[in-house]
Amino acid sequence: MIKTIVFDAYGTLYNVYSIEKKCEIVFPNLGKRISVLWREKQIEYSFLRQLTGNYVPFYTVTKEALRYACKACDVSLDEEKESILLKEYLSLDVYPEVEKVLEQVNNKQLVIFSNGSRDMLEPLVKNSVLAEHIHQVISVDDHKQYKPSAASYYQVLKKLNLTREEVLFVSSNSWDIIGAKTFGFKTLWVNRKDAPTEEMEVRPDYIANDIKKISEIVN
Amino acid sequence: MIKTIVFDAYGTLYNVYSIEKKCEIVFPNLGKRISVLWREKQIEYSFLRQLTGNYVPFYTVTKEALRYACKACDVSLDEEKESILLKEYLSLDVYPEVEKVLEQVNNKQLVIFSNGSRDMLEPLVKNSVLAEHIHQVISVDDHKQYKPSAASYYQVLKKLNLTREEVLFVSSNSWDIIGAKTFGFKTLWVNRKDAPTEEMEVRPDYIANDIKKISEIVN
Repeated sequence: MIKTIVFDAYGTLYNVYSIEKKCEIVFPNLGKRISVLWREKQIEYSFLRQLTGNYVPFYTVTKEALRYACKACDVSLDEEKESILLKEYLSLDVYPEVEKVLEQVNNKQLVIFSNGSRDMLEPLVKNSVLAEHIHQVISVDDHKQYKPSAASYYQVLKKLNLTREEVLFVSSNSWDIIGAKTFGFKTLWVNRKDAPTEEMEVRPDYIANDIKKISEIVN
Repeated sequence: MIKTIVFDAYGTLYNVYSIEKKCEIVFPNLGKRISVLWREKQIEYSFLRQLTGNYVPFYTVTKEALRYACKACDVSLDEEKESILLKEYLSLDVYPEVEKVLEQVNNKQLVIFSNGSRDMLEPLVKNSVLAEHIHQVISVDDHKQYKPSAASYYQVLKKLNLTREEVLFVSSNSWDIIGAKTFGFKTLWVNRKDAPTEEMEVRPDYIANDIKKISEIVN
């Protein structure tokens, strides 16, 4: 019996690629390339820091990933540009179907659980239409263990006083679904980009192209 | 004082992109794309399995990554094709400068330490000109902890009875260098593709485009 729906933030509720527009203004003709590289490197750096036991908050990871993306594209990132682009992470677009779905399932506890640090997550949620729908925001920064480690997901159970079976975990990131499912959550993989399913024995319980599927699962 | 040079295998001594030729024969016009995706996914899956505590040998990781790459390229991989392509991992090309450098530094103990399982590593070394130069092959499979975790590098010290300071660690994979340096090895990053340096505070001790630099460091 699902009591709580736990959402990943970046890529699941909020579109990280909405930063492409600002990247394009700051670096003409490179908006798409920089925004994609930035996101890839951000994920890789969070993996590497978890794997090597060298945690820094996601804001730092995000900044370092942006610096790498700019170097890889041979463009110079001064302090002003860096600050403009990092600020974009505080006002990402919400995916179009999200608000309505959250209204439909508001008989459940609705939680965001993200790798983002609180200085990123709290303004993001507050600045968005989701502020009134989300009951709680949990950051991995409270325990400094990144997703997809088991140690990170365990904090969700501990903070919310839940069992694994009471959680539906929703993410567009297949690595997050692999971590959450291995940990024991029921999972919905939001396959927004129509990507192939991962070739690992750990499979999501549900797959859909957006989060509308949730009301079917929990109602 | 360096006693032992520890080499990563894939990408450092052996060219994993030499599989492109066979991929191109099996899947015309897709050789490059499949070989690049295959390698990226192989690394990602090893990270994910380490992060989620769900170890399987690298042979399985490699097979699953190939299956994903083929799905992503919309081509069908039957058993015969899979077997042909996986077999390529047992006879990868050695980078051109490698043999001569190993001869020059053979006053040091020369060791391979790889994520590869022994069923992959042993035929690979044996089938290559490096067989007579490498004194020992260590596989993470003996302890089932993938690089770049500290637990993996620690096995090198234990098996060889060395201190961190006695090791020069050589890898073309920047994530492997980050792990090895965080663990405390002296490191040479073999930047074969002229990639930007990673934007993390952990930096390699030496950087060069091939392994010739080693004789300068240890002699």
